[in-house]
Amino acid sequence: MPVVGVIGAGQLARMMIPPAINLGLDIRVLAEQENMAASLAATQVGDYRDVDTVLEFAKTVDVITFDHEHVPQPVLRALVDAGHAVHPGPDALRYAQDKIDMREKLSELGLPVPDWARVETEDDLQKFIAEHGGRAVVKTPRGGYDGKGVRVVSEAHEVTDWFTALNEDGRGGALLVEELVEFRRELAQLTARRPSGPIAVWPVVETVQKNGVCAEVFAPAPQSAGRVAEVAAQIAVDIAEGLGVTGVFAVELFETTDDRLLVNELAMRPHNSGHWTQDGSTTSQFEQHLRAVLDLPLGATGLRDEVAVMINILGGPAEGTVADRYPAALEKHPTVKVHNYAKQPRPGRKIGHINATGETLDDVVFEAREAASHFE
Amino acid sequence: MPVVGVIGAGQLARMMIPPAINLGLDIRVLAEQENMAASLAATQVGDYRDVDTVLEFAKTVDVITFDHEHVPQPVLRALVDAGHAVHPGPDALRYAQDKIDMREKLSELGLPVPDWARVETEDDLQKFIAEHGGRAVVKTPRGGYDGKGVRVVSEAHEVTDWFTALNEDGRGGALLVEELVEFRRELAQLTARRPSGPIAVWPVVETVQKNGVCAEVFAPAPQSAGRVAEVAAQIAVDIAEGLGVTGVFAVELFETTDDRLLVNELAMRPHNSGHWTQDGSTTSQFEQHLRAVLDLPLGATGLRDEVAVMINILGGPAEGTVADRYPAALEKHPTVKVHNYAKQPRPGRKIGHINATGETLDDVVFEAREAASHFE
Repeated sequence: MPVVGVIGAGQLARMMIPPAINLGLDIRVLAEQENMAASLAATQVGDYRDVDTVLEFAKTVDVITFDHEHVPQPVLRALVDAGHAVHPGPDALRYAQDKIDMREKLSELGLPVPDWARVETEDDLQKFIAEHGGRAVVKTPRGGYDGKGVRVVSEAHEVTDWFTALNEDGRGGALLVEELVEFRRELAQLTARRPSGPIAVWPVVETVQKNGVCAEVFAPAPQSAGRVAEVAAQIAVDIAEGLGVTGVFAVELFETTDDRLLVNELAMRPHNSGHWTQDGSTTSQFEQHLRAVLDLPLGATGLRDEVAVMINILGGPAEGTVADRYPAALEKHPTVKVHNYAKQPRPGRKIGHINATGETLDDVVFEAREAASHFE
Repeated sequence: MPVVGVIGAGQLARMMIPPAINLGLDIRVLAEQENMAASLAATQVGDYRDVDTVLEFAKTVDVITFDHEHVPQPVLRALVDAGHAVHPGPDALRYAQDKIDMREKLSELGLPVPDWARVETEDDLQKFIAEHGGRAVVKTPRGGYDGKGVRVVSEAHEVTDWFTALNEDGRGGALLVEELVEFRRELAQLTARRPSGPIAVWPVVETVQKNGVCAEVFAPAPQSAGRVAEVAAQIAVDIAEGLGVTGVFAVELFETTDDRLLVNELAMRPHNSGHWTQDGSTTSQFEQHLRAVLDLPLGATGLRDEVAVMINILGGPAEGTVADRYPAALEKHPTVKVHNYAKQPRPGRKIGHINATGETLDDVVFEAREAASHFE
């Protein structure tokens, strides 16, 4: 029985367990600590930044994959050097780990990205801002997520603290600055690629962010049939092949007011924008990820109904747990699917999501939002 | 977080784990031994016939349910006496444990059953056979499954060994004899009932047995819209309420050549005839069972596509494992879902199943059979 090893025990690892059970795969998780979302399959608790810990874990599995993108490059390289299969591998993951590397690579491949620059000083940054209408987006190249490490600024001194931190960490380095894109909406292109080459794309979806955090996803993106879907899929295929991505990954895109698609971010793992696939697609992103990292044939990626909607449960109930709300929520919403990560509620924390499917977007969104409201 | 305790670690317990993960429920399994299908969630290994073992396990969970119907009545009663929630409870389970008790109860409730008798001697049996066209079905009241404990006979001496065993076990007792029903096909009515009363029925399905073992299931049963579905559902509701069943259960039915539905067997647990629900219904029988035993509102039971087909993987590959066949099987069948119980292949053993869904029965059956053939 093939053994998949997952580094990290968050909700993404947790949601890989059901398809592993269905497919009869053995799944083992290296958890950061006890009592995490994926602890059911945790066979080891340890620090993913420690080479020996990770090498020890790797000996117990056939392939290494990830719940997150934070495993340091030296650890990843040590795994590869020791002969372990690692998907996605270090050469791909570096682009998800460093936003400047990512922008350089995508530009080199001729892929559509916002105007950007690597800035080492406030003077350089101020110059970029001036050349781009007086406002720009500054990002720390590493460690940002869910809106953290991202600031919209009109003056360079608004990120003085970040420049100071860069100098203090001794590695030198730079910040990434990007034009403030005028976009109509945000899209995401979920994709899977096997090490041996085959690629599968799901329909492109629309994502709605609140405070920098994914809040709602509509699949397929409204009015995306035809050209939008084709362009989004082609960008994802070019990225998969150009960066050598393996497993499931997501390309976050801006649809600009002048009808271009620009690459915003890359996530080299199953992604919040793909949670709808659990109940809305023939193959969920978590099943597909397991198949991909084992280099097994990929599953069909079509929608099972006309429309699927995902709504995050952010923060959760002020008192009690998500499960405490089941009697009322499930009674009123017998068709929605609740995914509960068994995490303690905390303001802004992603602790679960609702999936709903049906025939028309208006009805499905309404149903999903009503169901989600029970968990606020 | 509610904790569901499952006694028995076979594939039914295994398949309760994914919906428990999705719903954020804690699931704990009392396993018969190490390395069973549901071992991922096993928190205790022990003998389910031992009162102390089971009571110890029960202290760690909020509700007790089952992978099988074999927990002895004294153990079940001890659980109830100690104040534990047990679903289904002993008063219902006795009818699944003893086929004579079941026939008596169903007859008392006026439900349609084949002609039957409790026979203590070969003379009584011979008399029943003579009165029913010279052939009859003899069943051991306890312990039969998948065709075991069932014989079609024309002479009483064909079950002399069973009469001898009855006398030897010291409990006296009797065999069950039933008329050999002339049936057009076999149906199954999957149903769920909460302790507080609400009931949900799935569409009635057709089951095809090979050598007494469930081989294929078609949902919904062809030509079952209207009257057949209504009668099957009403029988199941009457049984649920008349016998006090809680959780998911299946009523196996004969559709006779003279257009009656007769109750063949009862299974008071998720059932092979309901595996199609994992990919074919809005709510799978395993999710529904968890919801039911926790007395949570039941999920919608409609089909997600026009048709769903389940085909068992019986025995499995002569060499290697089910997973060894994935490269070929998944390549050719990207839309089917493989469920692999991670059991060692052995002739006739249920080691997995294939689910397929789509628009027309002919196409879906063809697809499912082709996919299943990869695992023979």
